Amino acid sequence: MRILVSNDDGYLSPGLYLLYEAVKDLGEVVITSTEFPRSASGREITFSRPLRFVETSFMGYKVYVTDGSPIDALHLAIEVLNFSPDIVLSGVNVGDNLSLQHIFYSGTIAVAIEAALTGIPAIAFSADVREFSEFDDPDLRNIVKNVAIRIVKYVTKHGLPEGVDVLSVNIPKPNNFRKCVKIVRAARVRWRASYKLDTDPRGRKCYWLYGVPAKADEDTDVSAFENGCVTVTPLSIDLNVSSKTIELMRDLERELAL
Amino acid sequence: MRILVSNDDGYLSPGLYLLYEAVKDLGEVVITSTEFPRSASGREITFSRPLRFVETSFMGYKVYVTDGSPIDALHLAIEVLNFSPDIVLSGVNVGDNLSLQHIFYSGTIAVAIEAALTGIPAIAFSADVREFSEFDDPDLRNIVKNVAIRIVKYVTKHGLPEGVDVLSVNIPKPNNFRKCVKIVRAARVRWRASYKLDTDPRGRKCYWLYGVPAKADEDTDVSAFENGCVTVTPLSIDLNVSSKTIELMRDLERELAL
Repeated sequence: MRILVSNDDGYLSPGLYLLYEAVKDLGEVVITSTEFPRSASGREITFSRPLRFVETSFMGYKVYVTDGSPIDALHLAIEVLNFSPDIVLSGVNVGDNLSLQHIFYSGTIAVAIEAALTGIPAIAFSADVREFSEFDDPDLRNIVKNVAIRIVKYVTKHGLPEGVDVLSVNIPKPNNFRKCVKIVRAARVRWRASYKLDTDPRGRKCYWLYGVPAKADEDTDVSAFENGCVTVTPLSIDLNVSSKTIELMRDLERELAL
Repeated sequence: MRILVSNDDGYLSPGLYLLYEAVKDLGEVVITSTEFPRSASGREITFSRPLRFVETSFMGYKVYVTDGSPIDALHLAIEVLNFSPDIVLSGVNVGDNLSLQHIFYSGTIAVAIEAALTGIPAIAFSADVREFSEFDDPDLRNIVKNVAIRIVKYVTKHGLPEGVDVLSVNIPKPNNFRKCVKIVRAARVRWRASYKLDTDPRGRKCYWLYGVPAKADEDTDVSAFENGCVTVTPLSIDLNVSSKTIELMRDLERELAL
């Protein structure tokens, strides 16, 4: 089995190598990443300049690094290394990725979505940590390894069900973890944008973004995670609506006839 | 009616003001944008620094400009200006946004998706142009204005059908336009990433991304657009799979029990 491991936190993130450690015995595993963290860079791709893509090593791990985006790293690994992964794993991300709002922002999930567009099943892993040093916690490492190896074995054995393109896995802090695993849908939103008005030292206005928690729907990734469970959210990348809904809109087509 | 007009090409793009011109008589219209073009920046949001958000004018139009991302511009307009739009219009983008692949990359559509997450109906407009000067073409301006005003009137009168969060409109070049308008689903992919190996003046390797066209599914936005039609693609932002599919995956939940 060929596994590609990537992330959006850059090649210096221990989360990348934790994911590698979890699955390294399952087959041929290649690690690729970006030079710098690219969180919340969404789905950036680099058209306007050539990209670097070099083999290097970090903490003894071989890794292919680009000066482009996480999506660039994925394509470079597949096309330049001529590596055809059976599955793409993205993460482990610094910070959870709960709710559609975060799923759409997340670079970690963007890598998984891009793999799915290319026809490769993909799993994104995100953990409730705020900095790299928290990946040293042996309890967290155990939870991640346990979940990652089992889920990858399951997906490579059974495939993903019809209509599922990506799995997004969120891992709580070990001291919140209640040894439960839930397959749950994503809440729509998790917070609402708000801004704190500030003044810079030269007296000019500026605005700091902060999030006001939004009420999440019941029985979703947000509530399960708050209850201390590892959450697994199956995602479809097909944003299209049903044929029936399209038929309902034929009057708009007539309205627009030029 | 309150309309927010924004884009991802920055406040110097004439496409932004073309969209404004199309709908300015329909109600109170506010224009917001970014300082610089942010195409293919996907869904970036700015957490790590405060943002500027200033009123300025360009070509006689009043516009609120941020040094953040297109998503930041949307939130700043709503929260800082205290403007609650009934509908958000994004564009007119320089370049079409056909297929799910482009829809996921596009900053223009990211603005519309973000509006939808906030509960506001949104329409993204993209045109088959490569540079700002092409927005001067009176034929293109007529097509955009005709389509935009009718579609906005329709959506504000009838609302979007159940399950539809965003409309993505693509406008062909006037000399390709065959006076047809099609409501069609998005193809999955439009191109496959490929790289041209190059060498910089210092002898180091670098890679230029280019796209090899992928075969698009029949009866999609790609085929309708190639046939010279304006395409309207209704999109759902709900990436969740059905409850039935989630039930099918309960064995994975058991497999993962820790």
